Amino acid sequence: MEKNKNTDPKGISQIQKKRKNTVDPTTLVEALCKGDKTALGRAITLVESNNKRHIEEANEVVTQCLKRPTKSIRVGITGVPGVGKSTFIETFGQLLTSQGNKVAVLTVDPTSSQSRGSILGDKTRMEVLAKDPNAFIRPSPSGLSLGGVTRKTRESIILCEAAGFSIILIETVGVGQNETTVHGMVDFFLLLKLAGAGDELQGIKRGIIEMADGIVINKADGDNLAKAKIAKSEFEGALQLFPPKENGWRPKVSFCSSIENTGIVEVWEIISGYIDKSKKTDYFNEKRKQQNKNWLFEAIEERLKSDFFSDSQISKEIGSYVEQVISKEISPFYAADQLITIFKTRS
Amino acid sequence: MEKNKNTDPKGISQIQKKRKNTVDPTTLVEALCKGDKTALGRAITLVESNNKRHIEEANEVVTQCLKRPTKSIRVGITGVPGVGKSTFIETFGQLLTSQGNKVAVLTVDPTSSQSRGSILGDKTRMEVLAKDPNAFIRPSPSGLSLGGVTRKTRESIILCEAAGFSIILIETVGVGQNETTVHGMVDFFLLLKLAGAGDELQGIKRGIIEMADGIVINKADGDNLAKAKIAKSEFEGALQLFPPKENGWRPKVSFCSSIENTGIVEVWEIISGYIDKSKKTDYFNEKRKQQNKNWLFEAIEERLKSDFFSDSQISKEIGSYVEQVISKEISPFYAADQLITIFKTRS
Repeated sequence: MEKNKNTDPKGISQIQKKRKNTVDPTTLVEALCKGDKTALGRAITLVESNNKRHIEEANEVVTQCLKRPTKSIRVGITGVPGVGKSTFIETFGQLLTSQGNKVAVLTVDPTSSQSRGSILGDKTRMEVLAKDPNAFIRPSPSGLSLGGVTRKTRESIILCEAAGFSIILIETVGVGQNETTVHGMVDFFLLLKLAGAGDELQGIKRGIIEMADGIVINKADGDNLAKAKIAKSEFEGALQLFPPKENGWRPKVSFCSSIENTGIVEVWEIISGYIDKSKKTDYFNEKRKQQNKNWLFEAIEERLKSDFFSDSQISKEIGSYVEQVISKEISPFYAADQLITIFKTRS
Repeated sequence: MEKNKNTDPKGISQIQKKRKNTVDPTTLVEALCKGDKTALGRAITLVESNNKRHIEEANEVVTQCLKRPTKSIRVGITGVPGVGKSTFIETFGQLLTSQGNKVAVLTVDPTSSQSRGSILGDKTRMEVLAKDPNAFIRPSPSGLSLGGVTRKTRESIILCEAAGFSIILIETVGVGQNETTVHGMVDFFLLLKLAGAGDELQGIKRGIIEMADGIVINKADGDNLAKAKIAKSEFEGALQLFPPKENGWRPKVSFCSSIENTGIVEVWEIISGYIDKSKKTDYFNEKRKQQNKNWLFEAIEERLKSDFFSDSQISKEIGSYVEQVISKEISPFYAADQLITIFKTRS
C-alpha cells in the first residue's frame, strides 16, 4: 500500500501527540456531553489511537460516556460499491435532521481507508450534511484490520450517543465480513440495492439478504422507476423463502431516489416502525444486551490474538515453526503448544 | 443430554486408564505403521484424550507419524441428514477396497456424538465395510466442541495415513460450520444431494455448493431415476453461475444409487480425475501445505481461547464482568483488558 505522498508521517504524529497530550478525560467528556462536536472528534481520535496511554484515557472516556442514559437508534446501511450509499445518506440524513434529530454517520470500511484520504473523501461525498450543525460525519479509522475498525467504531458509537446524537448511521461497503460485523452492532440493518443489478445470488449466497431488516432499491428515478417496482416485487418474493426474524419481523422492501428525494420518508417509516415494534416487546433492549455481551467476547478473542501475534519473541520464532509444520517435521498442534508456552513465559 | 444408561462412566474411565497407561509412543507407532488396526484405534484414543500426559504422548505419536511418507487421498463427504451418506460410504468404500485400496472412514459431527452411542451407531450403519480387513471406521470423538473434533480428526487422518490407509473418507453432517471445517482438511469435497429435495437455496446460501468439487445425486433408483437426471442438469446449470475454482476445476455432477450399486464407479472416476489433474499442476501439494499452515494458525487461536476460558480464575471472575458490561458500568474493552491482565499474571 502506497502512503500519501503529500503527508509527512513524522510531522503528523508530532501534531497528534501535541494535541492529544493536553486531553483530560473528564474535561473532554464534559465538553462532549454538551454536544461539542470538536470534543467529540477529539474523543474519537483518542479512541482510534494505539498509544498505550491514549488507550487508558480512551477507556476512561468510553466508560464515562457509557454511563450516560441515551435514547439512540443505530442503523447499519450496506450495499455494493456504486449503489449510492453516500448520496442516500446525504438525503436521508437531511430528512432526519429536518425532523429535529441529531444524526451521526460512521463508516466501517477497512479495505479502502488504507489507500485513500478518507477524511476528505467521506466529507465531500456528503457536502450538505457535513455542514449541517445537527450532523456529525466521521470516516472509517485508517490503517486498521477489520477487528480494529470494529472496536473503534463500537466505541465511537458510544461517544456519539453521549454527545446527544440520537440516530447513528453506520455505513459499510458490501465487501467481505464487514456486513456481519456491522449487523452485530446495530438495531436495524438496511440493505441498499439497484434494480436489475443481477447480484441477487451473491446477496443470498453470502447471507446478506437474510441479515437485512429492510431492503431499499435506490436510484428509482427516470427510466429506472419501472424496473425498481418490478425489483421490489421480486425481492418481496425472495424474502418469502426465508423464515421471519427471531422477533417475528418480516423484512420490508421499498424503493427511493436519493437524487430526486422520493421514497426517503418511507424508508424512515419502515425503520421507525420496526424500532417501535421491537421496543414494545423489549426485543430492542434484549438485543442490545446480547450485542454488548458478544462485544466483550469478541474483544477478548481479538486481544488474545493481537497480544500473541504482536509479541516480539513470537514474531521472531513463528516463521521457523510454520516452515517445520509445512515440511511435516512437527505437527501443527505441537508447534502451537510450543509457541503458546513461549508466549506465556513472556508476560 | 442423557447418558447411556448401560455404561458406568467410572468403570469405563478406569478401563481406559489401565489401557492407556501401558502405551509407549514408539512401540505404538511401530505397530500402527505395520497396519495394525488395534494399534491405530489405540493411537486415536490417545489423541482423543484430554489427559495432560496423554496429550504429550499423542503429540509424540502424531509427530512420528507425520514424518512417514504417505500417498493418501482425503475426501470430504457431506450432505443433509437423510441423504444417505452412510449407505453411500458403505457401497463406495467396498468399491475402493475391491480395487486394492485401504480405506479409512472418519466422522466430524460434534452435534450428534454427544447424545448417542456413536461407536456402535456408526459401525452398524456400515456393516459390511466394518468387517472388511482393508477398511477402518472410526466415529466422531464425543463430548467435544467443533474445534476439539477438528483437532482430533486432523490428527486421526495423520495416524490413518501412517497405518497405510490410502483413501481417507471424512464424513460430516451438513449442519452449521462442519462443512467449512472439513473442506479445510481434504483434497476433494463431495456433496451428496437428493433429487427435488428443494434445499438448493440453502446450499447456495451457505456456500456449500461453492465449496463442492463434485455433486452426486444419491438414491437415483426406481421412480427417482428420472428426477435425478433432471436434477443433474439443474445443478450443472446452477454451477455455471459460479466461477471455476482457483485451480481451474469446474465441479462435476453425477448421480448414483448406493443401494443398487449404480453410478458408484463414476463417482470415483470424478474424484481420481480431479486428483490426477491437481497433482500434475502441483496444486495438490500446494493446497496441502496451505492447509497445514492454516491448521497451525487455527490451533494457536483455539489454544489461546481454550486456555483463557478454562482458566479457573477467569471462570470465577468473568460472570461479574459480563454483568457489568451488560449494565453498561464498564466498556467491553475495559473488561477485556482487565480479564486479560488477570489471565497473564496467572501463568
